[in-house]
Amino acid sequence: MRRIFTNIGSLLSWSEKTQSMEYSKPDRLIVDKERISAIDQQAEKPDEIIDCQGALMTPALIDAHTHPVFAECRQNEFEMRIAGKSYLDIAAAGGGIKNSVRQLRKISEDELFDRSLPRARNFLTTGTATIEAKSGYGLSLNDELKSLRVIRRLNEALPLQLIPTFLGAHEIPDEYQNRRNEYISLLVDEMIPQVAASGLAEYCDVFADKGVFTRDEAELIFRGALENGLKLRVHADEFENLGVTELAAKMGAASADHLLVISEDGISAMKNSGTVAVLLPGTTFFLGKQDYAPARRIWDAGVTTALASDFNPGSSMTQNLQMIMTLACTQMKLSPLEAWQAVTINAARSLQREKIIGSLEIGKNADIALWDVSDYRIVPYWFGKNHLHALWINGSKVIC
Amino acid sequence: MRRIFTNIGSLLSWSEKTQSMEYSKPDRLIVDKERISAIDQQAEKPDEIIDCQGALMTPALIDAHTHPVFAECRQNEFEMRIAGKSYLDIAAAGGGIKNSVRQLRKISEDELFDRSLPRARNFLTTGTATIEAKSGYGLSLNDELKSLRVIRRLNEALPLQLIPTFLGAHEIPDEYQNRRNEYISLLVDEMIPQVAASGLAEYCDVFADKGVFTRDEAELIFRGALENGLKLRVHADEFENLGVTELAAKMGAASADHLLVISEDGISAMKNSGTVAVLLPGTTFFLGKQDYAPARRIWDAGVTTALASDFNPGSSMTQNLQMIMTLACTQMKLSPLEAWQAVTINAARSLQREKIIGSLEIGKNADIALWDVSDYRIVPYWFGKNHLHALWINGSKVIC
Repeated sequence: MRRIFTNIGSLLSWSEKTQSMEYSKPDRLIVDKERISAIDQQAEKPDEIIDCQGALMTPALIDAHTHPVFAECRQNEFEMRIAGKSYLDIAAAGGGIKNSVRQLRKISEDELFDRSLPRARNFLTTGTATIEAKSGYGLSLNDELKSLRVIRRLNEALPLQLIPTFLGAHEIPDEYQNRRNEYISLLVDEMIPQVAASGLAEYCDVFADKGVFTRDEAELIFRGALENGLKLRVHADEFENLGVTELAAKMGAASADHLLVISEDGISAMKNSGTVAVLLPGTTFFLGKQDYAPARRIWDAGVTTALASDFNPGSSMTQNLQMIMTLACTQMKLSPLEAWQAVTINAARSLQREKIIGSLEIGKNADIALWDVSDYRIVPYWFGKNHLHALWINGSKVIC
Repeated sequence: MRRIFTNIGSLLSWSEKTQSMEYSKPDRLIVDKERISAIDQQAEKPDEIIDCQGALMTPALIDAHTHPVFAECRQNEFEMRIAGKSYLDIAAAGGGIKNSVRQLRKISEDELFDRSLPRARNFLTTGTATIEAKSGYGLSLNDELKSLRVIRRLNEALPLQLIPTFLGAHEIPDEYQNRRNEYISLLVDEMIPQVAASGLAEYCDVFADKGVFTRDEAELIFRGALENGLKLRVHADEFENLGVTELAAKMGAASADHLLVISEDGISAMKNSGTVAVLLPGTTFFLGKQDYAPARRIWDAGVTTALASDFNPGSSMTQNLQMIMTLACTQMKLSPLEAWQAVTINAARSLQREKIIGSLEIGKNADIALWDVSDYRIVPYWFGKNHLHALWINGSKVIC
């Protein structure tokens, strides 16, 4: 199967050759089966010719941090927070992560799959082809495996590509509230080995912050993960700086995420280790806070920086990376070009898949987005509008 | 033509009877021709039965402040602002309102109409049926009349309802830079009388703020407008408090808009006059500022408060009132219910059309939105997603 994309208005992509985002105008792009086989060359015998009608072409978007498997929306907590209720008030009323845990434990795997499916499909509608997908609303071996199996089933059911992360260390579950060491042991001695043996997760993540897991607990969990062949990601420096980013960098984590209160030492550690910063402005926005992660400082220090949605029902109810780009530009002062880089090649790097996705170069997966704009800057600039014209994943057109 | 809407999941609308937003579950809503004729009663001989499939029904949205007639997007200035350029830097590089004025003056009425048409149509896609539409990028008699004629033509060409406002006092044009009194005279003695005589505008607006028009100039322009039968709206208290809100209230303005730096006296004046506050959180967001208009204080003081997009290419490039509701909830701490009131009945009040639009009550226009949600709170909560299921204006289904 050979497809030729013609009449491309412009093409925006990272270039491995120039090590920068390039804005070009190739005459055509050729896809053989699932891969890009040539750019701007003549090609014989196409099975399909796709007229791009002058649209902007970019790599399909990559969302490097999402929590897409949950039972119910939590609009009630959204309303409480607006009314001035604190995190503790909301927790006392049964809200927070533990609310999602109670809801998820109550339903079957099939029911969880059925509820997650339309939400997962919705990522495609705004141009996202690949998401990192965390468990973390189960917090028991069975409920975490149930969540990870749902992630695998979503990956099979949809053209969306899901990269699974085990987040058993999302919160201490109620039944271990006064026995946190026992929960850490459960994680390290039982859950991580069994999750790793199941092949259902590629990464292990820890929410290491004030009121959740400590730096030392994170270290134990990370060590267990590495011993079992899981790679590392981390929720770090969102509320309080506990030195977790430095720890994660030292242990070779693929990414450190959130980073609102990251220190200069943390930035240096990431730079040196190659750990990717995954920034989540949707969360800061959704929670009505004013201090975003210091994206400019992190980027300018030379840390590879991605942007992601943090899609979850409690603190960032959005799946739209176009909107995340607008937030990054208006609130974090990343340039439109940097925002595009952050949701394509840099997001791929945070998922250690920069060899196969994240740019439109020969040999890469044909994950291609076309946009109804004449200029890439218009996507973050004109917000609240879905600019996606069409999407291909692995060379096949996605119909939502 | 009789249409019966059945299988309504829930209906959210202002109720004139209870003077509050009511969340109900009627069995059916009946539309005869262009008006709502009955709710929850039996009806004979429908020409069409519409199965709402359990969707949420609300009044179609109303956008009380937009600048939809312009020649070109200004993504270049968006990029400059992110890079730290000041308003003065951008103006020195040929940017700002005057940039749009130069662009608009260069093109014909037909060309302006052609460019504005798809943008105007885009309001419909997110549930907006009615917009207030300002001129103000012409700043000469001919170019302002050209803009107002385009607004009339858009109103005729689309199901979207446009309510026209003359905004010749948007800026002092370059050719009057050192002769501002002459421009005020031109506005009062020539432009306002001719615009009023043309019947092309219902309101007159003035951008009265630091660096634009003074309070005294605004008073002269308002007086001219009232003498010629135009009603008043005003851009006030966005950058500096010049007492303009108090002036507008005293002169009976229908609305005062922006209000970021409104004083307690301003709030009292609006309360007493019945002038509606039109708040524009999209602008604060787009410009990357942190201090939103004090919506909570204005609302709690008893001032009727609407929300609008301020759609314009320089300072608020959005047309999506669902997104504006999210901004109002997360950044201004309006409740989801208040946000819905602000984009329906309160927006209608700011346009003095609360007798015919803004709620789903008997006798009102059948401007009806259906939403793919089970709970009205989900629309502001789940952001970056278009929740609109379908839209009717004056009883006819809108196809975008």
